[in-house]
Amino acid sequence: MSRELSDATVAIVGLGLMGGSLAAALSARRAGKRIVGVARRRVTWETARDLRFVDGGTCELAEGVAEAGIVVLALPVGEILATLPLLGPLLRPGCLVLDVGSTKRAICAALDALPASVQAVGGHPMCGKETSGLSVAEPTLYEGRVFVLCPVQRTSPEALTLARELVGAVGARPVVLDPERHDRAVAAISHLPYALAVALVNAVSGLAASDPACLELAAGGYRDTTRLAASDLEMMRDILLTNRAPVLEALQGAQTELGRLEAALRMADTAALMALLRAAHDQRQEMTR
Amino acid sequence: MSRELSDATVAIVGLGLMGGSLAAALSARRAGKRIVGVARRRVTWETARDLRFVDGGTCELAEGVAEAGIVVLALPVGEILATLPLLGPLLRPGCLVLDVGSTKRAICAALDALPASVQAVGGHPMCGKETSGLSVAEPTLYEGRVFVLCPVQRTSPEALTLARELVGAVGARPVVLDPERHDRAVAAISHLPYALAVALVNAVSGLAASDPACLELAAGGYRDTTRLAASDLEMMRDILLTNRAPVLEALQGAQTELGRLEAALRMADTAALMALLRAAHDQRQEMTR
Repeated sequence: MSRELSDATVAIVGLGLMGGSLAAALSARRAGKRIVGVARRRVTWETARDLRFVDGGTCELAEGVAEAGIVVLALPVGEILATLPLLGPLLRPGCLVLDVGSTKRAICAALDALPASVQAVGGHPMCGKETSGLSVAEPTLYEGRVFVLCPVQRTSPEALTLARELVGAVGARPVVLDPERHDRAVAAISHLPYALAVALVNAVSGLAASDPACLELAAGGYRDTTRLAASDLEMMRDILLTNRAPVLEALQGAQTELGRLEAALRMADTAALMALLRAAHDQRQEMTR
Repeated sequence: MSRELSDATVAIVGLGLMGGSLAAALSARRAGKRIVGVARRRVTWETARDLRFVDGGTCELAEGVAEAGIVVLALPVGEILATLPLLGPLLRPGCLVLDVGSTKRAICAALDALPASVQAVGGHPMCGKETSGLSVAEPTLYEGRVFVLCPVQRTSPEALTLARELVGAVGARPVVLDPERHDRAVAAISHLPYALAVALVNAVSGLAASDPACLELAAGGYRDTTRLAASDLEMMRDILLTNRAPVLEALQGAQTELGRLEAALRMADTAALMALLRAAHDQRQEMTR
């Protein structure tokens, strides 16, 4: 295994927002010996090369990873799961595989099924956008963000150290968590907010069908609260379907809270209503401090 | 009644974000003959005067409205309802009363109980913030925003024209709606998003209690979706309690949609799940166009 990032050829599979930004950040800081991009379409890696995000590229997975000391799978969850079984036989012994998928249990299980000669760490940087693609990639995307690392059974201390070095090189802050804790946490703070945004937009569509004035009055609060509903569909489908149990648990939690609000309002129970509003108010104020 | 804004002394009761910004916008455009501020504390109207938002001020409602051709109640809903019965006997015949309260049915009923010699129109500018107070007031707050006007039974065509003139003078776009339609629309696009933000924060607090990693991973999506939960508590309490039936209807709509998402996810019914996500995605994309 490459012991240091500066010795390693880094192959980045997928040059969308996440992969493109990772390549850009590594190249901008001259981290890694060489950055290779792997993309489905030739125009994508050529564009990345012209932007100096990568040193070279290919459409062939086997060619792209052949010399790599580090392979980063920067694909949606479903494609990561589909790619891992193909990837194993193509890797050099000691190669470190890292991914940026939004859910970690299924992916970490697949990482542990790689050939024994290969190292692996699950990863998830907390810096999505509702837009996607290389055209919105930027070298500063990871700066100051949390980048979760999930060691799997095989992960050696050296592999985790190398993964931490890569995370630090793009300006992110590594947080080590096991896959189960990660998946429950993101169900709460990422997948539940998305589900609520979807439910809100669909509920308002229903109400607006009987009076178009609804949407005419929509202001900043509605825009902010519903922004996540415009997230990439296939990405969110994969995320929800690979994180069902934690998301269902989080949905139950939200429905319980909505039921409490509804009961307090139905009874016009001002004290109960204020207790619920105040708890959320104080908790949210805490965040902005 | 003053037939034109330029002839009218405008008394603004309440110099917080909404009232302060209204005064600032009218003064900046030299609309109105004279702008008078009425505030509970002397320091508030003196500050507004030093900022040239008002020409003068007072802590006494009777004194503030004595010469006014237009009185704008820029107070939270609960205080508007408490003030209107006191205000009636203090007004000159022909005076126009306008308010900026966030719900309109209860307020419009109270406007219709004013003395017969007085004119009235309900109002609601769609430009809240989570911060409040004169210190965040700004003359551009209303620019380009929808300002709902709700005529009441007594509202003469001349009174509505004068209200429209005032709305236009602060750069807002008047939209005339009856109070019932207004209240159902804002229940959907304003009060429901608030309720969902509250439920989300409280649900995540519950989940985070068992694992603090939850909040450590929270990124932009969570911040945006929960921003409304930090809204002013007393203001939101009044709003929800004066708009119970429409808010309960909107909450039912959201719970139905959450139930649909939950069912599709529980069954791992990819087609049903995608139909729900796509409907919201396409509707939300529509907004940003």
